[in-house]
Amino acid sequence: MTAGILLAGGRGNRINSKVPKQFIKLEDKYLFEYPLESFERSGIFEHIVLVVPEDWIDFVRTRVSIDIHVIVGGNTRSESVRNALDFLEKIKPDFVVIHDASRPFLKLSLLRRIVKSVLEKGAVTAALPCVDAMVELEDFTHVNREEYIRIQTPQAFRYDIIKKAHEKRKNWKDDTQPVVECGFSVEFVEGDPFCFKITYEEDIELARVIASRWHTIFEKDASLSKDLLQR
Amino acid sequence: MTAGILLAGGRGNRINSKVPKQFIKLEDKYLFEYPLESFERSGIFEHIVLVVPEDWIDFVRTRVSIDIHVIVGGNTRSESVRNALDFLEKIKPDFVVIHDASRPFLKLSLLRRIVKSVLEKGAVTAALPCVDAMVELEDFTHVNREEYIRIQTPQAFRYDIIKKAHEKRKNWKDDTQPVVECGFSVEFVEGDPFCFKITYEEDIELARVIASRWHTIFEKDASLSKDLLQR
Repeated sequence: MTAGILLAGGRGNRINSKVPKQFIKLEDKYLFEYPLESFERSGIFEHIVLVVPEDWIDFVRTRVSIDIHVIVGGNTRSESVRNALDFLEKIKPDFVVIHDASRPFLKLSLLRRIVKSVLEKGAVTAALPCVDAMVELEDFTHVNREEYIRIQTPQAFRYDIIKKAHEKRKNWKDDTQPVVECGFSVEFVEGDPFCFKITYEEDIELARVIASRWHTIFEKDASLSKDLLQR
Repeated sequence: MTAGILLAGGRGNRINSKVPKQFIKLEDKYLFEYPLESFERSGIFEHIVLVVPEDWIDFVRTRVSIDIHVIVGGNTRSESVRNALDFLEKIKPDFVVIHDASRPFLKLSLLRRIVKSVLEKGAVTAALPCVDAMVELEDFTHVNREEYIRIQTPQAFRYDIIKKAHEKRKNWKDDTQPVVECGFSVEFVEGDPFCFKITYEEDIELARVIASRWHTIFEKDASLSKDLLQR
């Protein structure tokens, strides 16, 4: 049994907007509804846990299906993950997929690659090569970008692995970090440029362009990747 | 006097296509024509040097205006830059702007920020924060992404600075590297998520979505940023 955790609990706001970025409206949907729809459409999850700020619970409840578990987030990303894992304790899924709602454009092909891979590997993350040159801010040293990889979400873990990692360490920005530090290896799954993170105002403009075409992109991808999970 | 160098000389092809990526067609234009149009529309450049592979010269000539200098690229990016600088030697511009054609979606606001900044600073590059978690491939160590910055193009340099840097070092992937190593400081100018680099097949799909809206995005930005260079 696989559970999906969608993190929309952030309040931090580097975007010039009155509402947290996950509640900005893009076309006909709020931002968090894009990846939520991917979760729902995938048919992968027996349980979906949607983590939101306390004062957005009522609003979110009016927008989502009754079978979504809407829970309150913490002050940090890792606290929000912990709240979701605590909530899942009574359900005890075999696997959990964790995704940031600030990456709204989640294709089914990516979700399917992640889930297919975690069944074998136990701990996986979407990742992409570093294609831009990178320099250290302090002294403008160029680093060899081929030695690094960019981590996206979704990530997926065997439930016992992420639980153990979460009990051992209490604060992190990326869930693969405590997993690696607990001695588990994490496999990379090819990420997707559409699954970029919305952080700044300029990202919203790009997101609006994609949102206007998202339905077509999503359906085409869903159709092309439909055999990925058949065993 | 300012010259613009547009690098479209690459042959490397990580994209499943018969032609180098800069010659893929997106909507009604070839990929290299998007940034070329930005260069031309900007009104910034007295000279525009377009660097292409030798066997694409004839094709490119049929597509571009007679006043564009179309020259042959080298085997590497730095050889192509060197060819362009050698070509400019007889013209001796005060400043050069260098841009990769594999970043087709170049807004005028970004070009204008770069040019405004180089007049004061002498050496500048577009750059963006690292928003994804980053790990070292070798041992999955998480790096503190806030200590790094991602370098985009366009970049701009006083002509004497880039000439000197180019004479001192013969091979690099990013033009700020020899400039920094020659002891000059390079300033960062805020980059643009639209100005991402097309490297893989999946990037082309994203590029097609943007291309379908590019005219509107470009014109809106051009209008909003039109006072940026007025002195």
